Amino acid sequence: MAVYLDCNATTPVAPSVVQKITDALNDEWGNPSSSYELGVKSKKSIEEARRHIAMMIGGKPEDVIFTSGGTEVNNIVIFGIVDYYKDWVNSQSSVEGINEKPHVITTNVEHDAVIQPIKHLEKKGVIDVSIVPVSRRGCVVPQDVLSQVRHTTCLITVMLANNETGVIMPVEEIGREVNSQRKKEKLIRILFHTDAAQGIGKIKVDADKLKVDYLTIVGHKFYGPRIGCLYAHGLGHETPVYPLLHGGGQEQAYRPGTENTPMIVGLGEAARLVCENLSTYSRHMETVRDYLEEKLKEAFGEGHVTFNCSKDVKRLPNTCNVSLAGEGLVGHVVLSKCSCIMASIGAACHAQNKPSGRILLASGVPHNRAVNAIRLSVGRETTTDDIDIAIEDLKQSVTTLSCNKSS
Amino acid sequence: MAVYLDCNATTPVAPSVVQKITDALNDEWGNPSSSYELGVKSKKSIEEARRHIAMMIGGKPEDVIFTSGGTEVNNIVIFGIVDYYKDWVNSQSSVEGINEKPHVITTNVEHDAVIQPIKHLEKKGVIDVSIVPVSRRGCVVPQDVLSQVRHTTCLITVMLANNETGVIMPVEEIGREVNSQRKKEKLIRILFHTDAAQGIGKIKVDADKLKVDYLTIVGHKFYGPRIGCLYAHGLGHETPVYPLLHGGGQEQAYRPGTENTPMIVGLGEAARLVCENLSTYSRHMETVRDYLEEKLKEAFGEGHVTFNCSKDVKRLPNTCNVSLAGEGLVGHVVLSKCSCIMASIGAACHAQNKPSGRILLASGVPHNRAVNAIRLSVGRETTTDDIDIAIEDLKQSVTTLSCNKSS
Repeated sequence: MAVYLDCNATTPVAPSVVQKITDALNDEWGNPSSSYELGVKSKKSIEEARRHIAMMIGGKPEDVIFTSGGTEVNNIVIFGIVDYYKDWVNSQSSVEGINEKPHVITTNVEHDAVIQPIKHLEKKGVIDVSIVPVSRRGCVVPQDVLSQVRHTTCLITVMLANNETGVIMPVEEIGREVNSQRKKEKLIRILFHTDAAQGIGKIKVDADKLKVDYLTIVGHKFYGPRIGCLYAHGLGHETPVYPLLHGGGQEQAYRPGTENTPMIVGLGEAARLVCENLSTYSRHMETVRDYLEEKLKEAFGEGHVTFNCSKDVKRLPNTCNVSLAGEGLVGHVVLSKCSCIMASIGAACHAQNKPSGRILLASGVPHNRAVNAIRLSVGRETTTDDIDIAIEDLKQSVTTLSCNKSS
Repeated sequence: MAVYLDCNATTPVAPSVVQKITDALNDEWGNPSSSYELGVKSKKSIEEARRHIAMMIGGKPEDVIFTSGGTEVNNIVIFGIVDYYKDWVNSQSSVEGINEKPHVITTNVEHDAVIQPIKHLEKKGVIDVSIVPVSRRGCVVPQDVLSQVRHTTCLITVMLANNETGVIMPVEEIGREVNSQRKKEKLIRILFHTDAAQGIGKIKVDADKLKVDYLTIVGHKFYGPRIGCLYAHGLGHETPVYPLLHGGGQEQAYRPGTENTPMIVGLGEAARLVCENLSTYSRHMETVRDYLEEKLKEAFGEGHVTFNCSKDVKRLPNTCNVSLAGEGLVGHVVLSKCSCIMASIGAACHAQNKPSGRILLASGVPHNRAVNAIRLSVGRETTTDDIDIAIEDLKQSVTTLSCNKSS
């Protein structure tokens, strides 16, 4: 009896998404740039998917570009600022900024798909970076971000919700402030990006309300396939996008390469499901997650269970980051002794089972609790029966480990 | 009754490939970096696919990196040389080359996915480029390529087979020469790349025999899904690869982003089919293509049909590029009056139905014949019955156009 509690790593693919992909593989394999019916039909399906994505985030279809995934989107946005800054300097009559580097602001709890491209450019010496630490509640403080703004700041990137703790960041507040900063003349327009990978499908994401210029969408976090989208508010006219890849003219030449029609229509269907059912999904996940947390306290005793997300911050409805007290109860060891639970201790992207602890430590979790942390992230189909099984599984694991230790 | 003759634009997806993808969407959606069974299973399937890809091109699995497609592979290779050259200059004790740019050699009939990234870097002023014209037979002459080599040359990129004419390029001969040039000391190692998109699944492609450092593999040209692979001979130790994207550690950190397991296993299955059946596929396509060319001559008269690929060069077994003589018989117009044939006049990537004529003109085809050109590319399932229907369709189109003209 397996219980999947790792929806923040990846979700299953919704049955109707699988169906859409399979149908497209069979019937919509024509090259979308071809002028005959088979191609035209594929193109139409892609545009329908684009409309669903746009609807899901309250944007315009023409502002949505399909990519291979979230990593690519974040790289497009971050690498783009080097050219963006150069173009701005060249457009200025004064020489101010000409010998300076573009400046980027981000937080210390971002995903590697944001941190690594930033570090790469910093190491190459082409950008300056300010990394804003989150508060001890795991949440970034808008004023801490905004106080870092310089006259060379051209990008602020703050995740919508953290993948490990589930903390929802004050992106809307930062967006509002960035927007008002823009009123100042003669400065470069600060571009504001959020990686919304963990938000979409769990909480309402409205790009307009968030006042972001760029937003990253990742299919496999909301029951879609492993591709993604870049949303850019007023793409090309209000918000510049500098393509990372060069080739054919697909995706308005912002992202060339023959379109992956089956994956795109699958992503569109996943977006359609979110548009129709978000509040149901969200409520369900919250109920199950809250049940999980209650049962954890019951099973191990309140004093032995600590949740690594402050009560004072908004958090995702599906994420429970928990540490069981006890010297041998290291997160990945506890999980390895479970026979039913499939879960992880954090982002899966790196080496298997090697926790960096980076996010939790940055979020104010003390070291001994951070090493014991387990991330349990529920999904649309997780039931309270699943949770009961998971609790028994955890109890058995903890008993085994405690026996081993005392023997 | 539709007849698909556009396999160089994209192929259908093989039924067993569709099945593999669908199965993976249902059963192998776990994050391949996760340590529980669902993840481990996905990871295993990815490695199996990698072995099939390697076997198909006579390479090692560890030299294969999955990407989102051919455009991405070509961009990785081409963008990589900027850092490659910089690293080489930094490693030299002398200052030679320090104020020079890396030099790239390519041909004038490459696909946009090669030409555009090269043009982009040239326009930015970071590379020097030599574009070698092909001969009037549409084939590049090895000596013409090699005579362009300078002391700053760090990349030669020549396609394996042309998408429009079907001409197979002397990649092996160039590879041999490049290899012998490398014996000269103190020079930067020239990296040799071939975009094998149009070769794989049609002719035997052996990376070792071709003596290439990099090879581009594109799934949707051989009945696979719309992703691709970079093959790099001795990846990381013999041949440097500079990742274009930065993020998690997937694909040995050369290509981060959660692996698209379903597409990857589909690509592996497509490779397996090629490994098992290449000679059958190839013979079949050649038979059908030759039948098509005979029937074209019969239908329109030898004097009114010209094939835009010289008899003196090796060519793909599936491609027929033909011009019908007659003032009104412009390629895309003839196709638009066909009711059965799905085909195109060249690469689909650009604007629909707007022929650049670039490739044909570069290949020595005179202008009046180039505008009348139609590319008919057959596939594994194309039958001689299909060809009979296509010929009738073309005849009817030509009659309609001739009547319109005389009326």
